[in-house]
Amino acid sequence: MLKSLRKTVCKANLDLPKLGLVLFTWGNVSGIDRERGLVVIKPSGIAYDKLTPEDMVIVDLEGNIVEGKLNPSSDLKTHLCLYQAFPEIGGVVHTHSTYATAFAQAGIGLPSYGTTHADYFYGTIPCTKVLRDKDIKGDYELETGNIIVETFTTYDPNKTPGVLVNNHGPFTWGKSPNEAVHNSAVLEEVAKMASISLALNPNMEPIKQKLQDKHYSRKHGPNATYGNSDELK
Amino acid sequence: MLKSLRKTVCKANLDLPKLGLVLFTWGNVSGIDRERGLVVIKPSGIAYDKLTPEDMVIVDLEGNIVEGKLNPSSDLKTHLCLYQAFPEIGGVVHTHSTYATAFAQAGIGLPSYGTTHADYFYGTIPCTKVLRDKDIKGDYELETGNIIVETFTTYDPNKTPGVLVNNHGPFTWGKSPNEAVHNSAVLEEVAKMASISLALNPNMEPIKQKLQDKHYSRKHGPNATYGNSDELK
Amino acid sequence: MLKSLRKTVCKANLDLPKLGLVLFTWGNVSGIDRERGLVVIKPSGIAYDKLTPEDMVIVDLEGNIVEGKLNPSSDLKTHLCLYQAFPEIGGVVHTHSTYATAFAQAGIGLPSYGTTHADYFYGTIPCTKVLRDKDIKGDYELETGNIIVETFTTYDPNKTPGVLVNNHGPFTWGKSPNEAVHNSAVLEEVAKMASISLALNPNMEPIKQKLQDKHYSRKHGPNATYGNSDELK
Amino acid sequence: MLKSLRKTVCKANLDLPKLGLVLFTWGNVSGIDRERGLVVIKPSGIAYDKLTPEDMVIVDLEGNIVEGKLNPSSDLKTHLCLYQAFPEIGGVVHTHSTYATAFAQAGIGLPSYGTTHADYFYGTIPCTKVLRDKDIKGDYELETGNIIVETFTTYDPNKTPGVLVNNHGPFTWGKSPNEAVHNSAVLEEVAKMASISLALNPNMEPIKQKLQDKHYSRKHGPNATYGNSDELK
Repeated sequence: MLKSLRKTVCKANLDLPKLGLVLFTWGNVSGIDRERGLVVIKPSGIAYDKLTPEDMVIVDLEGNIVEGKLNPSSDLKTHLCLYQAFPEIGGVVHTHSTYATAFAQAGIGLPSYGTTHADYFYGTIPCTKVLRDKDIKGDYELETGNIIVETFTTYDPNKTPGVLVNNHGPFTWGKSPNEAVHNSAVLEEVAKMASISLALNPNMEPIKQKLQDKHYSRKHGPNATYGNSDELK
Repeated sequence: MLKSLRKTVCKANLDLPKLGLVLFTWGNVSGIDRERGLVVIKPSGIAYDKLTPEDMVIVDLEGNIVEGKLNPSSDLKTHLCLYQAFPEIGGVVHTHSTYATAFAQAGIGLPSYGTTHADYFYGTIPCTKVLRDKDIKGDYELETGNIIVETFTTYDPNKTPGVLVNNHGPFTWGKSPNEAVHNSAVLEEVAKMASISLALNPNMEPIKQKLQDKHYSRKHGPNATYGNSDELK
Repeated sequence: MLKSLRKTVCKANLDLPKLGLVLFTWGNVSGIDRERGLVVIKPSGIAYDKLTPEDMVIVDLEGNIVEGKLNPSSDLKTHLCLYQAFPEIGGVVHTHSTYATAFAQAGIGLPSYGTTHADYFYGTIPCTKVLRDKDIKGDYELETGNIIVETFTTYDPNKTPGVLVNNHGPFTWGKSPNEAVHNSAVLEEVAKMASISLALNPNMEPIKQKLQDKHYSRKHGPNATYGNSDELK
Repeated sequence: MLKSLRKTVCKANLDLPKLGLVLFTWGNVSGIDRERGLVVIKPSGIAYDKLTPEDMVIVDLEGNIVEGKLNPSSDLKTHLCLYQAFPEIGGVVHTHSTYATAFAQAGIGLPSYGTTHADYFYGTIPCTKVLRDKDIKGDYELETGNIIVETFTTYDPNKTPGVLVNNHGPFTWGKSPNEAVHNSAVLEEVAKMASISLALNPNMEPIKQKLQDKHYSRKHGPNATYGNSDELK
C-alpha cells in the first residue's frame, strides 16, 4: 500500500543524516497522500542505517494506524495537525538541527538577513510562543501543532515553509517530502549564517522588502527563472 | 574472561572517534560486570585504530589488574569511584569533546535550554568545584571522582547522567557502555547548541519545569512512549 | 566547441561542493575565451553530481546562447558584467559560502587581518552598497554586476580578486576558472578566521601595509618566491 | 640520502590535511638529522596529494640545498632559525590552522584554560610581537624565526612547544616531525576550545599552577604515567 510514497518518505528520512541535520534518531519525515487521506511517517526510535520502506508506518488523519508493525514517530500528532491546517503541503520534517534549534532555544524568530534566506522563505521564519503548562501536560504533541498553526495566523505557510518551536526546534514543510527536507537544510544553513552575521553586526537589519520580493519570485511563482528545488529527488 | 564485555567496551571506545568526540587518544570508556565486581577499561595511550577487545584491561573495584598486558587508562580511579558511588550505572565515558570541555573550562554548568537536553538529562548538567591544591597533589584521579560524587549530593546520577569537571572536561555514564557513549554525544551536541543560543540571547532562561518533566518522561520512566537510546548497539 | 574550456568550467563547478563552498546548487563558475569573446557557464538548477561538460552553456558577451540546451545560471549577467569591466580576468565564481555570506549579510568589508588574507587579496575585500529599489526591480543581475564594478573604482580587481555583495554573498574571480575557485575557498577561510579573531579581540587592527606588501609580492608579481595557486588544476 | 627521514617528513606533511590543519598547500613540516646537520623539508607549492618522499628537499643549516630538484618551502629560514636556537627539537611545523591563526591575528597568547592544554603545553602559548617594518622588508622569514626565539627568552621551548606569530599563524615543534604535527593538532583544538570558553565566560582565569604541573608531569618527565604522544607514527 502506498508503495511509492513509502519509498519517498524512507529516502527523505535517510537524507537527514546525509545532510548533517540529525544525530542518532533525532528527526522524522512524513508525506501525505491527499486523495486517500493517508500519511506515511517514520517509525519511532529506529536507527537510520536500518530504515527500509517497509518500516514506514501508514496512518489516517486521525492518527489511526492503517498499516505498519512499528510505532509511528512520537511527533506524529504534530505532523497531522500541520497537514490538516495547511492543505497545500505534501511533506513535513522535524529535526533538532544545531543552529535552527539554537534559535528556537533562544526563543527568537529568524529574520531574512540575506538572499539565501529570501530564495526559500518569504520574510521572517517565526518562533512560536512558549506552550502553556496545561498544554504541555495535556495532548503535548497535538498542542505543539496547534501553537504552530496559531503562529501562522499572520504568516502564509506556502511562502514561509518553516517554523521554530520555542524551547524545542524546527519544523519545515513543502509540496513534497523532498522539498520539506530541502527546506530543513536551508533553514539550518541560514540560521548558521545569521548567527555569524549577528555576532559581526548586532545591529544588522533584515533585507529590503524589494529584495525579498525579487528573490522569492525568481525561484517561485509564475515568472520563476531559477532552477527548481528538487535536486534531492 | 568477560569476553562479551571486552567486546562491548572495545566497540564503545571505537564509537568515540566515529562520533567526533575524541582527537587522538583523548577519551576512554569502561564497563562493569556488577555480579563479579570487575571493570573492563581501555588501555592507556593506544591509538583507536589499533584497539582490539584483547587490549582491554580487566580490574577489580580497588583497581588491581586481574587480566591484561597493558596499563589501564590513567583515569581508571575516577571510573572506579563513580561505579562505587552510583550503584545503578553500567558504563562510564570520559572525553575532551570540544563544546562540553569549553563549558568545563569556563567553569559553568549547562542548564536545560531545550527539549534536546531534556530528553536525556534531567535539569542542569552540573560543573564541579575546582579541586583543592592538596587533592591535585594527592591521589588526583581519585579526587576527581570524589568531587564528582560530592557534586551529585544534590543531583540524581540516574536522571542526570553526566558532569563537567571544572578546568578539565566531561564524564558521562549510563546503564551500559553504549548508553554512556550515547550520553556523551548528546552532551557535546547540547553544549554546542547552548553556546550558540547564549550568543544569540545572553538572557535566555532554562525551559519550564513542566516541559523538562514531559520530555524526560517521554523517553524514560514507566510511561515512556519514545524510542530507546540504544541505537549504537 | 570550446571543448577544453567546457571541461575546465565543469570541473571547477564540481570543486565547489568538494571544497565545502556550496549546498545544493548554490554556486556557479564560468570561464571566458577572450579571443572568441565567448563565456562558458554552469546551467541553472542542475545538481552537481549530475553535471557534465556537455551541460555547460556557451554564451556571447551580450548573453546570447551560442550553444547549449539548458538555461544558463540565473547569475549570468553578473558574470558578463565582470568580464567586460575587468579585462584581465578569465574566470568568475559565485557562491553562498557560509562565512563570506555572513560578512555580506552584516554589510561589512573584510580587512586584511593576517598573512593568510594578504597572500591572496591585497587589502580589504570590499562590501558593495545596498542596491537601490529601482535596480532590484530592473535588470537585477546586471545591476548586481554594476554595483560590483562601481565598488572597484577604488580597488584593483587584479590584486583584490573578490567582493562581498551586500545582503547577498561573495563573487570571486581570477586568471582562470581554477584560480577563481581557489580564491573563493580562500575568501571563505579568511572570513571564518576573521569572525573568530574579531570575537577574541573586537579592537583588532588590520595588518601593517609593509606586511601586506611583503606577502602579496611573495606570491604574485615579478619576484614571486612562492608556490603558484594552481593546485586545483 | 636520509631515506628514512624523507619518508617520515613526507608522511608528517600528509598528516596535516588528514588532521584538518591545512587548506591547499598552507603548511609545511621539516625534520632534522642532528648528527649530519641536515634538514629535510617540504618543497614549495606542491599539492599534498602529489607529495612523495623523493620530492622532499634536503638543506644544510645555512639553507644550502644539498639534495632535491624542487625549491624548499618559502618558510625554510624560519625552520632553520628554530633548529639552531632550540637544540633539542627534531621537527618543526607551520600551518594556518583556523583557530590558532585567529588567535595570532587577534595578537593574543593562549593561556592554559584546561587540562587538554596542560597535557601538552606548559602554561601560555605566547604570541610574538609584531615585526618591525625593517624586519619585514629585510630577511623576512629569518626575522620571523628571530622574533620567535626572542619570545622564548622567557619560555622553555621544550615544555611549551609552540608559538603564535602575530598577524600570521602558528609554529609548533617537537622531538620528532610526528610530535611536532601532533602538537600542531593539539594547539588548534585548544585554541578552538578557548575561543568557545571565552565567549561563555570572558572573565575566565587560567588553570591553577598545581593543575598545570600535575597534568604536564603525567605525560612528560621522569614519572610520566600516561600514554606517549606518538599515535601518529
